[in-house]
Amino acid sequence: MKQVYLGMIGGGTVGSGVFNALQQNAELMAARTGVRLIVRKVAVKAFDEPRPYPITPALMTLNWKDVVEDPEIQIVTELVGGTGIAKVIVLAALEKGKSVVTANKALLSAHGPELFAAAKKAGTNLYYEASVAGGIPIIKTLREALVGNRFERIYGIVNGTCNYILTRMTREGAAFDDVLADAQRLGYAEADPTLDVDGHDAAHKTGILASLAHGFWVDHHDIHVEGIRPLTPLDIRFAQQLGYTIKLLGSVRLAEPTKATKGKKAKTAGARISVAVSPTLVPQSHVLASVNDVFNAVFVSGFPIGDTLYYGRGAGKDATASAVLSDLADAGLDITHATLDRVPAFTTCAQGTVVPFSETSSRFYLRLNVVDKPGVIAKITAVLSKAGISIASIVQPEGHEGEAVPLILMTHRASRAAIDKARAAIAKLPTVKGPSLLLPVEDFA
Amino acid sequence: MKQVYLGMIGGGTVGSGVFNALQQNAELMAARTGVRLIVRKVAVKAFDEPRPYPITPALMTLNWKDVVEDPEIQIVTELVGGTGIAKVIVLAALEKGKSVVTANKALLSAHGPELFAAAKKAGTNLYYEASVAGGIPIIKTLREALVGNRFERIYGIVNGTCNYILTRMTREGAAFDDVLADAQRLGYAEADPTLDVDGHDAAHKTGILASLAHGFWVDHHDIHVEGIRPLTPLDIRFAQQLGYTIKLLGSVRLAEPTKATKGKKAKTAGARISVAVSPTLVPQSHVLASVNDVFNAVFVSGFPIGDTLYYGRGAGKDATASAVLSDLADAGLDITHATLDRVPAFTTCAQGTVVPFSETSSRFYLRLNVVDKPGVIAKITAVLSKAGISIASIVQPEGHEGEAVPLILMTHRASRAAIDKARAAIAKLPTVKGPSLLLPVEDFA
Repeated sequence: MKQVYLGMIGGGTVGSGVFNALQQNAELMAARTGVRLIVRKVAVKAFDEPRPYPITPALMTLNWKDVVEDPEIQIVTELVGGTGIAKVIVLAALEKGKSVVTANKALLSAHGPELFAAAKKAGTNLYYEASVAGGIPIIKTLREALVGNRFERIYGIVNGTCNYILTRMTREGAAFDDVLADAQRLGYAEADPTLDVDGHDAAHKTGILASLAHGFWVDHHDIHVEGIRPLTPLDIRFAQQLGYTIKLLGSVRLAEPTKATKGKKAKTAGARISVAVSPTLVPQSHVLASVNDVFNAVFVSGFPIGDTLYYGRGAGKDATASAVLSDLADAGLDITHATLDRVPAFTTCAQGTVVPFSETSSRFYLRLNVVDKPGVIAKITAVLSKAGISIASIVQPEGHEGEAVPLILMTHRASRAAIDKARAAIAKLPTVKGPSLLLPVEDFA
Repeated sequence: MKQVYLGMIGGGTVGSGVFNALQQNAELMAARTGVRLIVRKVAVKAFDEPRPYPITPALMTLNWKDVVEDPEIQIVTELVGGTGIAKVIVLAALEKGKSVVTANKALLSAHGPELFAAAKKAGTNLYYEASVAGGIPIIKTLREALVGNRFERIYGIVNGTCNYILTRMTREGAAFDDVLADAQRLGYAEADPTLDVDGHDAAHKTGILASLAHGFWVDHHDIHVEGIRPLTPLDIRFAQQLGYTIKLLGSVRLAEPTKATKGKKAKTAGARISVAVSPTLVPQSHVLASVNDVFNAVFVSGFPIGDTLYYGRGAGKDATASAVLSDLADAGLDITHATLDRVPAFTTCAQGTVVPFSETSSRFYLRLNVVDKPGVIAKITAVLSKAGISIASIVQPEGHEGEAVPLILMTHRASRAAIDKARAAIAKLPTVKGPSLLLPVEDFA
């Protein structure tokens, strides 16, 4: 039996989860793969750090350099998180020629190309299955299992905190702030929830998926990001009445070819894609609508595969451990078979572009606050009509004349530029009061 | 760019689907993997065979030996189907040292170990992603992406024909025979539907999944198989009333350790599993219940990953092509990197046993036909009580006294042996008429 030594950096929730999973299943993995993975060292923040599973005391060190500089260690697992010391660790390990396994989406999102280049330069490899959607093996799926596909549309529910909050808002009719407070109490949301609820974490993951699917690195600045804070129980309820569920979706869509990119040249010029994160109306009958609580799912539609979906826990010590163990198995096989270049960390295989957000189009949900007076709807619809946007349906609850009441408009497909312009014009109407909310509607048609 | 030559055998629906997908996406795959796949020959039944996509005439031959004996061809794709000539072809290609890609679940189910041994002996490899669940990459998922997991439960909706029929029976309240006839007319069911509707095709696939998940080859004779013919609109409706949807599920469950297998020895002795195919009551709130029409899905629950699901088209020229292309990419990489043994076709890594069906247990749905007379229910429940089976609920529509009416019993967990014995005793009661139906209920608890 071939043996491969690994060192771990990070011994908290995820780190101890990986350690425990290896203790439970390393024998099973060895029987399956022919490679025995042996943990030599675990660098931890503190020996007595609170952790859900114990780590063998004799393996622990407080200095990550003990791991990276150990000549016997062939694989380094970075489970520290963040973009600071984690970057130093990953680069140091790669420079030493070690294979690196990371679960760090923020790090990849911020410094992916630099890390991939370092891995290539050192003749080693960087594995990051756990960086997107926790236990769901979406990285391997996109770049190996679906390697024969052109990816037309990818939609991901990739932030468990947001999905948990939206699920409870939907089930209970509760307000965002109340559910967030409860989620924080239960440990499903951080004390500072910004990274999650404002969509940044989902954007990190969506950017990685977009990059893998289309073969060029998508800069996170090119991703339009909206979070779930502006959603009210009213929006959830109106969406339900119209047959929709609101989910925070990361989306990666192949743009329609324009005149300039049409024809044979389009194929070689690389993909034009739009990448965004936004609360989105999803039909209740669609499989993504039934992905609830902290679960994640990634819906992938392409040719030749058609529609397909991958579902599981997007975070947590155990689900994340599954993804890390999968990477460790690959790293072990690649080391023992001398195939570190078989599936490189990232191969740029196309020159693509991210379409400016204003040029994207979709159907829209527009919630306005209007004074309930005769002629209000006529004025609003006139603005939309002038902008070339046609209305699919209007919902207005019964109000008392003269009071401000919500008005919901569902549009047919329109460009983001057109709807933004119309929305600004509508905001100036004297009968329209307070903030409005604009959300894309995805019919998967 | 490295080049790998492949030959295809089978140029019908799936064969031409693979050919077309390669024409569309081979360049993209080459850019992604660094390996260009080039089709050299396609053996077809007849040059003018009806096929959904054209195949380049100059590549076609009527003799499969032209493909297998071509010294330049490194990969042979078998898309003939069946267990006759397909077996001859696969063995001949393996003996010549070629890598073989197949979509043939019937062949693997019947002769897996023989084919795997032939591949190993010849120092080559056999790939079969397309054999289970069409486009869903469940083979790669089980043995690579989830390689760090112990698989506790796997449930698959793996026969699109049955799922289509059940979906329409559920939506329309229609009878099995009527929907089957319609499915045949629409091309969703074969003229002879036995292989599909009686559960055999699902059993082939479930056996492959069970074998991969537990590391020993599960003989298809050890799989208990029931099809969907006995289901009536009444069963579908009663299940709905009770909060369930009926799906044809292939199940692979890790058995509870017995006294004899408990403790440390259990781990080394290999898994004790139950493997079955049966129409099953699934809670309407479970993700598997929302898998409709011809779609397939495989639900996998294990440690450390928890619950996870893979969803997509289970058949058809395009979805199947996606799986074949994935195998071709792996075969191409394995050939060019000389790693044909990296992930072998099948590695026995455990000595497991399939628990006899009578020893399995679950909750049950029992539909009886009874004469609507006082005391009937008392007699039936007495039989069940004597067998140690407790009843969770009873549903009986209002009937006219003296007439035969359906009676539905939902039990708590019981052994199959106990319920079978009780059912036989109940059938002998003078107030019980005609055939009864017994289905397992899966609560995923």
